[in-house]
Amino acid sequence: MSPTLTLSIDAMGGDHGPSVVIPGLALAAAEMGPGVRFLVHGDEAKIAPELARHTALKALVEIRHTEKFVAMDEKPAQAMRRGKGSSVWNAVEAVKTGEAVAAVSAGNTGALMAISMLILRLAADINRPALTASWPTAGGITTVLDVGANVESDAEQLVEFAIMGAAFHHALHGGGRPTVGLLNVGSEEQKGHEEVREAHALLRATDFEFDYHGFVEGDDIAKGTVNVVVTDGFTGNILLKTAEGVVRFIANELRGALKSSPLNMMGALLATSGLKSLRTKLDPGAVNGAPLLGLNGIVIKSHGSADAKSYAAAVVVAADLARSDFLAQIDRSVKRLTAVLAQPTPAQAESV
Amino acid sequence: MSPTLTLSIDAMGGDHGPSVVIPGLALAAAEMGPGVRFLVHGDEAKIAPELARHTALKALVEIRHTEKFVAMDEKPAQAMRRGKGSSVWNAVEAVKTGEAVAAVSAGNTGALMAISMLILRLAADINRPALTASWPTAGGITTVLDVGANVESDAEQLVEFAIMGAAFHHALHGGGRPTVGLLNVGSEEQKGHEEVREAHALLRATDFEFDYHGFVEGDDIAKGTVNVVVTDGFTGNILLKTAEGVVRFIANELRGALKSSPLNMMGALLATSGLKSLRTKLDPGAVNGAPLLGLNGIVIKSHGSADAKSYAAAVVVAADLARSDFLAQIDRSVKRLTAVLAQPTPAQAESV
Repeated sequence: MSPTLTLSIDAMGGDHGPSVVIPGLALAAAEMGPGVRFLVHGDEAKIAPELARHTALKALVEIRHTEKFVAMDEKPAQAMRRGKGSSVWNAVEAVKTGEAVAAVSAGNTGALMAISMLILRLAADINRPALTASWPTAGGITTVLDVGANVESDAEQLVEFAIMGAAFHHALHGGGRPTVGLLNVGSEEQKGHEEVREAHALLRATDFEFDYHGFVEGDDIAKGTVNVVVTDGFTGNILLKTAEGVVRFIANELRGALKSSPLNMMGALLATSGLKSLRTKLDPGAVNGAPLLGLNGIVIKSHGSADAKSYAAAVVVAADLARSDFLAQIDRSVKRLTAVLAQPTPAQAESV
Repeated sequence: MSPTLTLSIDAMGGDHGPSVVIPGLALAAAEMGPGVRFLVHGDEAKIAPELARHTALKALVEIRHTEKFVAMDEKPAQAMRRGKGSSVWNAVEAVKTGEAVAAVSAGNTGALMAISMLILRLAADINRPALTASWPTAGGITTVLDVGANVESDAEQLVEFAIMGAAFHHALHGGGRPTVGLLNVGSEEQKGHEEVREAHALLRATDFEFDYHGFVEGDDIAKGTVNVVVTDGFTGNILLKTAEGVVRFIANELRGALKSSPLNMMGALLATSGLKSLRTKLDPGAVNGAPLLGLNGIVIKSHGSADAKSYAAAVVVAADLARSDFLAQIDRSVKRLTAVLAQPTPAQAESV
């Protein structure tokens, strides 16, 4: 049997706090089986009553009481200044001290990122962190990053995203070497701006632990052309939200179309079992549990609005990553990138 | 009665050439009523037999024979060098000479743009052209630009896109002053990279012929929060293709879900009339007829794969724009932008 995993949980983050987090942990514990325990950070007066309803979970939980918490609308800078001792701070701190192998929070993304960067620091040779989306596609789940940790990214950072995204995808979904594509406005070599063309050349030239497919276009995401789609945080954030909006719009229009005649309404009633959960299945924002990539440690962000089942999914992601080679793989690949970047370019080499 | 409009038509562009273009013109002519005629450029041997089937149209058409045409896969540089005398070249040339008020082509976008820039030139004070998408949203049609004429855009160019997009939207959809939003990763003032923040400040400070709403996010597109969404051509191209891919994926999944049980299949059959054309209605790429914005003249790009009905829609867009104040409005607004940019900034003014 593998050794017991300890996960560090921010019970106060998210729209619902312990009333979702605790039932979520119960579901996750049931799914993962023995070998997992939880440090649960937050207000004991609110956690204990929830825990009382989940007797099987109770034995796996150690409550770390704090009354302090970071609000969902708190600015990152404010959270960094005032967050010490809060449930999210303590949850991340437990990863730093080695008490836990991963932290999970449904708190606000900006504050979680700022506090995690401050406590865990960026991993060696990583320039910027990244956020992923697990995007439902024709090929299963495609990992898309960065979806908003950055507003601009140079070539080296795009390559780092490729490395981190591939390691995450492989840790979570297994399979052979993941395939990675770089998002661009066309698939020809000369397309796009300087950053993507430079990143393309670096990815082509270097042997990482994934297969670089080349440029992909926007419609390749839903096709599932590659396992991992890399883009800058500005484009990634906008396209994720655009797609979420489109899915919501279609779901609404569909409801309207199906209700537009008595015959259609009857058809819709009959088709309900097939349509149910279609939105959840197709929404690029619906798959829960996104790592903050690039840190010295594993921190998983859950949606703030997650229900218990969805929160449980984020907890399982934390455990899966903690059991994987994920951080070590990133470290190996980034070292290789650093070595490649340190080599003289062909032009420089000639002039020597 | 308004004077006769002459539209210049590239009959050889697109996947189907005259076999779609001529029936498309017949549909457009029927929809628009009297007062429109067509200069049709292309191979008379292919155009005449099609025209023979549309007697009402025949009287409105003057064939301008040429055997030369630009292939769908021809590179823009090649098309510029070798395109003289081709059907698309001659179609655009007729706008330059004043024989026609607008040109329509279903030929390849890059070649059409290159040839149009060469013949018509950019309008005074416009730095870059732009391409639009007419995006179906909860609020009707939202105009999104640039969707691929550029790979990078500075603040001034983003403001030009706002001006051109608003003029186009107003010419086509009427109503009061259109509302314009600038796509960003958040709605707060300090969000995003330098170019969007600078464009935001320019749009806030200047009185154009539209209402500037401020920053919008990706999900605001499908919500129809504003009439016109402005972004750089890299982001715009990728998000349009991403959304098209998502719509296609959902349509496929929906088909699958509805067929997944006999009961669902029955439901789907009953619901067919409601679902029919849902994809066409929702696909951001499905509304046909996109202007090449920024030129001294009106050139409309039709989808290469358009059928006759869809091609007719592009022809109607050409006529609507030609009858509007569109080019003059762009000219007025760009002059205002130029004046604002020529003023000393507050910092410069203080140092005088």
